[in-house]
Amino acid sequence: MKAIAKTKREKGVELIDIDKPKIKNGDDVIVKVNTASICGSDVHIYDWNDWAAARIEPVRVIGHEFCGEVVETGAGVTTVTEGDYVSSETHIGCGKCYYCKNHMKHICVDTKILGVHVDGAFTDYIRVPEENIIKNNKDLKPEIASIQEPLGNAVYTTLVEQVTAKSILVMGCGPIGLMSVNIAKASGASKIIAVDINDFRLNKAKELGADITINPKNEKVVEKIMQITDGLGVEVGLEMSGSVQAAKNLFKSMRKGGRVSLLGIFDENVSLNLNEDIIFKGLKVYGINGRIMFDTWYQIKGLLESDKLNLEPIITHKIPLEDFKKGIELIKSGKAIKVVIDMNK
Amino acid sequence: MKAIAKTKREKGVELIDIDKPKIKNGDDVIVKVNTASICGSDVHIYDWNDWAAARIEPVRVIGHEFCGEVVETGAGVTTVTEGDYVSSETHIGCGKCYYCKNHMKHICVDTKILGVHVDGAFTDYIRVPEENIIKNNKDLKPEIASIQEPLGNAVYTTLVEQVTAKSILVMGCGPIGLMSVNIAKASGASKIIAVDINDFRLNKAKELGADITINPKNEKVVEKIMQITDGLGVEVGLEMSGSVQAAKNLFKSMRKGGRVSLLGIFDENVSLNLNEDIIFKGLKVYGINGRIMFDTWYQIKGLLESDKLNLEPIITHKIPLEDFKKGIELIKSGKAIKVVIDMNK
Amino acid sequence: MKAIAKTKREKGVELIDIDKPKIKNGDDVIVKVNTASICGSDVHIYDWNDWAAARIEPVRVIGHEFCGEVVETGAGVTTVTEGDYVSSETHIGCGKCYYCKNHMKHICVDTKILGVHVDGAFTDYIRVPEENIIKNNKDLKPEIASIQEPLGNAVYTTLVEQVTAKSILVMGCGPIGLMSVNIAKASGASKIIAVDINDFRLNKAKELGADITINPKNEKVVEKIMQITDGLGVEVGLEMSGSVQAAKNLFKSMRKGGRVSLLGIFDENVSLNLNEDIIFKGLKVYGINGRIMFDTWYQIKGLLESDKLNLEPIITHKIPLEDFKKGIELIKSGKAIKVVIDMNK
Amino acid sequence: MKAIAKTKREKGVELIDIDKPKIKNGDDVIVKVNTASICGSDVHIYDWNDWAAARIEPVRVIGHEFCGEVVETGAGVTTVTEGDYVSSETHIGCGKCYYCKNHMKHICVDTKILGVHVDGAFTDYIRVPEENIIKNNKDLKPEIASIQEPLGNAVYTTLVEQVTAKSILVMGCGPIGLMSVNIAKASGASKIIAVDINDFRLNKAKELGADITINPKNEKVVEKIMQITDGLGVEVGLEMSGSVQAAKNLFKSMRKGGRVSLLGIFDENVSLNLNEDIIFKGLKVYGINGRIMFDTWYQIKGLLESDKLNLEPIITHKIPLEDFKKGIELIKSGKAIKVVIDMNK
Repeated sequence: MKAIAKTKREKGVELIDIDKPKIKNGDDVIVKVNTASICGSDVHIYDWNDWAAARIEPVRVIGHEFCGEVVETGAGVTTVTEGDYVSSETHIGCGKCYYCKNHMKHICVDTKILGVHVDGAFTDYIRVPEENIIKNNKDLKPEIASIQEPLGNAVYTTLVEQVTAKSILVMGCGPIGLMSVNIAKASGASKIIAVDINDFRLNKAKELGADITINPKNEKVVEKIMQITDGLGVEVGLEMSGSVQAAKNLFKSMRKGGRVSLLGIFDENVSLNLNEDIIFKGLKVYGINGRIMFDTWYQIKGLLESDKLNLEPIITHKIPLEDFKKGIELIKSGKAIKVVIDMNK
Repeated sequence: MKAIAKTKREKGVELIDIDKPKIKNGDDVIVKVNTASICGSDVHIYDWNDWAAARIEPVRVIGHEFCGEVVETGAGVTTVTEGDYVSSETHIGCGKCYYCKNHMKHICVDTKILGVHVDGAFTDYIRVPEENIIKNNKDLKPEIASIQEPLGNAVYTTLVEQVTAKSILVMGCGPIGLMSVNIAKASGASKIIAVDINDFRLNKAKELGADITINPKNEKVVEKIMQITDGLGVEVGLEMSGSVQAAKNLFKSMRKGGRVSLLGIFDENVSLNLNEDIIFKGLKVYGINGRIMFDTWYQIKGLLESDKLNLEPIITHKIPLEDFKKGIELIKSGKAIKVVIDMNK
Repeated sequence: MKAIAKTKREKGVELIDIDKPKIKNGDDVIVKVNTASICGSDVHIYDWNDWAAARIEPVRVIGHEFCGEVVETGAGVTTVTEGDYVSSETHIGCGKCYYCKNHMKHICVDTKILGVHVDGAFTDYIRVPEENIIKNNKDLKPEIASIQEPLGNAVYTTLVEQVTAKSILVMGCGPIGLMSVNIAKASGASKIIAVDINDFRLNKAKELGADITINPKNEKVVEKIMQITDGLGVEVGLEMSGSVQAAKNLFKSMRKGGRVSLLGIFDENVSLNLNEDIIFKGLKVYGINGRIMFDTWYQIKGLLESDKLNLEPIITHKIPLEDFKKGIELIKSGKAIKVVIDMNK
Repeated sequence: MKAIAKTKREKGVELIDIDKPKIKNGDDVIVKVNTASICGSDVHIYDWNDWAAARIEPVRVIGHEFCGEVVETGAGVTTVTEGDYVSSETHIGCGKCYYCKNHMKHICVDTKILGVHVDGAFTDYIRVPEENIIKNNKDLKPEIASIQEPLGNAVYTTLVEQVTAKSILVMGCGPIGLMSVNIAKASGASKIIAVDINDFRLNKAKELGADITINPKNEKVVEKIMQITDGLGVEVGLEMSGSVQAAKNLFKSMRKGGRVSLLGIFDENVSLNLNEDIIFKGLKVYGINGRIMFDTWYQIKGLLESDKLNLEPIITHKIPLEDFKKGIELIKSGKAIKVVIDMNK
């Protein structure tokens, strides 16, 4: 079968031919991939940045966001069966470390990641342990089913504390930031402010529920937010940009006693005035990594069931596997939000 | 000015003539009542039940849900001014007891209640301490502004923990139960189940966002809920009926690890199988009284600002002050939800 | 090897001879039992009450609280090795149900319990899955290591919310109630009130840290507690008696805004005045079942490490396996707290 | 009466003669100061740093930590009476702003501070509003009663989440750091690690309950902590030094999923690797300011009542008012922890 793989310890990927995966352990599940989606980390892997170089051993099939149909299960598998329409959590916890035994499998010290440490989803068939399998509702569109993994990041970041009836600032409108806008909207946030330097993304933010959008190129972010919030600032701030300036603006825009969630990854250190930014304000700041396994997935299911999400505007492109490199370029262009690979094309 | 007052220690009220209230303390605010609404406890006061007889000293003007315009303020008042469009918290905390000093003013041991311990709102002018005044947005409809007080009960009961993405059961569809249905809808609950023995109310519940309604006269409540929830039960249960049978059904309908909020008041003791109903299930149960002062009011403001609430179907009747007794009858008939008194009529 | 087993579906147990257990699954661990302790539920199993009759299929070796040395491990076991000094969680979660996947393995719908569904610890060797194994510090006394399982119930019940600086009422001074007294003491509770009808137990409560003890036979419980707490009642109440009257007294003794944990199991329904007992008081009530797997065990470890616990007064008797029935009688007599079986005797 | 006052907008203070304060408002309370203690911020005021220069208008009596006896009360005062032995919260909230009305009076936007915005406690008599008065137990030593205000900072910082059974790192062993060590000990922390560059303070830390002390001049802090905690790091970290290097070490020493409280004030920005320090670790970080008004004071009361605190080693010097400048020097020397002024000397 065809697969997009990192074949050498350098920039780029190749479309290669490999064997279909087989059941190795009793809890293995083989899924025929229907749809897979490209993540920002796939771009990093493509570009072979330090993070990727430290983790990936070629030859490795990449890709970790996907949905598909179960075609084979190991002897011990009981919760999923052939024909089931499924997606998957990407992190495979060791199940034995301090974190796994204390309800923090999402920060397990020995995590294996699909498409990084084990073969991934940009191909026809993928092998996943039963525990990671998420069953989808039959009528969930494949492109939405595929993006549930990053949606989980957005859910965890946004809902780690209640947002209902609160003002919320989303700093950075990449795919996960946009999802957070939409989750906040579905959750009854009082006011949703979205910030990005890309107007294409800001327009998407409006479509997904942002009440106010701010482009720092045109407006002073903190000043505008203070004006909108009677000089108090926002009650909830989500850092989803990885931009140092954005992070600084976010802290300056927070209401005293507010809550910050940090998800975006930074290329450099961030110099903060801890006194003014956090201490005197009495802020609470959460570092967010991955998705709670598996509470977040049940929240995703609940949100989809509420019928309040409207994620389709996030899917801007569908391409065949052969066009993978074009997908990478689209994402880099800033003209795409989520690029989805249709394995049936 | 005309006022509805309890004039004797017996059933009934009278429409009397009284003087307009004057500023007595530096923090007094005089409000010209625009709209007031009838609460279930006004019905109890009318009927002169034990609760009322233990608290009310005639002659007492009753009524505590209202909105209006500020017409005069005491010398020390700084946060509100003539012409402001306001509503009011009903509980006047002592500010000095253990509870008031520990963020529990809503359960102050020396609370005074508008329309119970001090003169109330079913008249032209009312005196309220500055602290209790809530400023309304200019474009909030008076009938909605008036029912914010019971809305606060619903907000506190429903949102004491997150409901976003969760299944929720609302037991009892009186005004506050219906408001909870609507709040749950606005907050992105995954599935909203409303139960009542009155089909008129159940239809309102559907209009306000209930996904499923159950009339115990026609269906087995627990069985139906288990069927709808894959045999797991609901994650959140709100007891808003005060019915013993409803409370029992609610506990039987809960998912293990779920959350219950108790708001409805019971006429008798409730006999529970604590083992099966709470302990083995690992439930968390909240007793709910009043509104958090004043956090809940800021949540109300936030929800109104989110533009997700749709409370108008709850207002079933508008009457002039003279028709107050008709209002009481309407409520008792089960054919009204919220009866609102328009002081301008 | 010798073992205490339920051999017939009736009252009593027998001392029988059985084969040493063998490794069956890759994650099996065989432990040579050093010390085991008798639980209240062992008494119920002995007496063959409804709970026991509904769960146990003879022939079944009973006993679930123990410590010992690992003597053999399955092929997949990596976190524990021969010679390790260990104890064990009693509940074996399925790992696949809704609860297991949502951090509620302790209320798993398909739990297997050691000494109930699978062979237990009142014998020389026991087989336990790796996940359930808890490694002990080398210098932990075996009788303390053995009682960590019920200690976990006490830890979960007591510490589900902070007790530091708070007044706490422990209703019922059986082994777990006494442990809670000691945990509250170690945690800096401001005032610890212990209630029981047995003076032997109350004296133990004093030894373990209770500031005030009350015997309802001699004093009015609620009145005394109100007197001690400036008329406010206690901030934290732990129901560990399973007595209806005690539960009622506990609710009457609670401070408004307080927290209740229910652990004791009742023989009958409990009739509560929900208005006065929970709703108007704004209480929070937790149903407690088992131990959080495995967070509670890490709390136990932390408490033992703090060197603040003093559990030895709880161990009132050490007996050889042959005297098991005498152990049951001791417990029933009310003159013993914890009876420990020394397998080396 | 004699008073220590800032008389000019420059470094230094003077011992001046002023009139005894009089009742101005109905809620005023006049307290005869028995004992007052010198705070780090008094040193800043003495030195006339930017913080002080921005807030203080000479002539201003300084000092805010104290205890004494009520000698006169305003007409509306009901909860305190002549002869009461009292201390006081230092922050006087406006009671009307968004924060005051949302249970965040400690971060009120219009706070007045004793000894900063209004006359303080380094004198014979002080005027304080009733709300701020804290009644002390008759047998509480005056020097302990006086230091309850900074003790409140330590209580809030330490107990904002549970520390029982957890490993805790206290960065900086000034008075408040040392108090936190003692609070953690009283609360049953599993392991208390104290860090400072001053051995005198580290010895005090040991006396107050630290299990391990580290002087960064002699040992590598992070390395040592990792070694002590099985490579996991500490579960709770308290930043009480205001040192950039200490803050960096603290974040590096944290266990994944841990909790950080920031209280120390920094002279410069802190450059953090947010990815490694907070995000990937899934940390929760609290900014801490003041004391929760007045929940923290009830926690103090509860801790004192538990009889687990041992604060006397913190009081290293008692001086008469005339020796105030000597007190400042003592603190600057690093050879004193808490210097207390005895007004009866």
